[in-house]
Amino acid sequence: MRNDNKIGKLYGVGIGPGDPTLLTLKAKDALEKADIIFAPKGSDEGISVARRIIEQVIEGKKTYIELTFPMTKDKNLLKKYWKKAGQRIAGELKKGKQSAFVTLGDPFIYSTYIYLLRIIKQDYPKIEVETIPGISAFNAAASRAGFSLLEGKEKMAVLPVNETMDGIEDALKDFDTVVLMKVGAKLQKVIRLLKQKGLAKNAVLISRVGHPNEKIIRNIANIKDKELGYLSVILVKTKAG
Amino acid sequence: MRNDNKIGKLYGVGIGPGDPTLLTLKAKDALEKADIIFAPKGSDEGISVARRIIEQVIEGKKTYIELTFPMTKDKNLLKKYWKKAGQRIAGELKKGKQSAFVTLGDPFIYSTYIYLLRIIKQDYPKIEVETIPGISAFNAAASRAGFSLLEGKEKMAVLPVNETMDGIEDALKDFDTVVLMKVGAKLQKVIRLLKQKGLAKNAVLISRVGHPNEKIIRNIANIKDKELGYLSVILVKTKAG
Repeated sequence: MRNDNKIGKLYGVGIGPGDPTLLTLKAKDALEKADIIFAPKGSDEGISVARRIIEQVIEGKKTYIELTFPMTKDKNLLKKYWKKAGQRIAGELKKGKQSAFVTLGDPFIYSTYIYLLRIIKQDYPKIEVETIPGISAFNAAASRAGFSLLEGKEKMAVLPVNETMDGIEDALKDFDTVVLMKVGAKLQKVIRLLKQKGLAKNAVLISRVGHPNEKIIRNIANIKDKELGYLSVILVKTKAG
Repeated sequence: MRNDNKIGKLYGVGIGPGDPTLLTLKAKDALEKADIIFAPKGSDEGISVARRIIEQVIEGKKTYIELTFPMTKDKNLLKKYWKKAGQRIAGELKKGKQSAFVTLGDPFIYSTYIYLLRIIKQDYPKIEVETIPGISAFNAAASRAGFSLLEGKEKMAVLPVNETMDGIEDALKDFDTVVLMKVGAKLQKVIRLLKQKGLAKNAVLISRVGHPNEKIIRNIANIKDKELGYLSVILVKTKAG
């Protein structure tokens, strides 16, 4: 898919939470047509999880370029990395290379792609971008656990767990379904709150959904494993069912 | 995939919002392995939208059984239809037929599949069911509109629009992103509320996402078309960005 006359197109491709068969047909097609696949990773030494997932289903030899986005909350430092990544991607697109940037889950849910896209739109407004949605972790988790997210007139809140547990109590009061993301080290705090509200039995934790070591835990009141919060989603029904 | 010794397995397959290329590889595989594909429709005379979508990408001849679920809010009447559908599905599974039930979007978001699954679990507990997640309308809408759903510490509310506009005002106050589903005839009411809150310019309406007649409307304050609310999702950012 070379085109020497014009700038290549960039596909932002959501690849789902981990199971490579959860890629969409459209995502697979975009990746197979791409000359270059950009894949994010957390450090220069690390491997790109997204790359390892798609390599299992994408046919044909590809040029992979792994881009580092360090695990930091320092926005200024991150901005430098996004700018550098944008520059690298733009450079390849200007050679007429069709390209794809792969991102875990859905591209517009807690993804580095959101920031990268913003930088590309700002610094290289002529680049055409098409975003391909992906199965988000909480949709995959719901299917694995047989957990109904929304039915009838129900309302759902999706929020990250912060140190201060900000917003969770209100969400548990006002919404039928609460999806807790980025649980991490705050798992025991979440469990305590859910027990206190009498909702621990209405909750299910899905860890590493779609990955080979996926775990589904329904009796979350008894969780002792501190590491389980990482890459976990907790789904809660707030009304007696 | 016949097995005369045991009951067939049922796959509940989310097929995404309309674009057949938004099926996952797993969904396509489950449908291609199925002897029988059950597809919901709104009336005996109507056609199954889900069937029309998958027929565009599924290879091999299939036996389709269209199941009617009338458009009514009468739960007792609906329950009869779910029971009848469950009976029909169980009947085929008992013949050892591998089967799939297709459902638009994600199976666990506002779907008839949720009720059907409950009936099957209750009436036929021996039937093995596997649910395959699908791209939900709001994820697809976000990708089409280039709309960031969640980043950093943001919180998202997903809720249907009721006659009383119940919960929408609170969600607009407490959440960074609000996803309004089932807009329907209440479109003008929603637009009035968003204008009143100074949020109409932060909203985007995506109608029939993934279908050939998809529309993306960013200036929702000026919408005159009353039909546009049907099969539409409205995405709103509540903070100045």
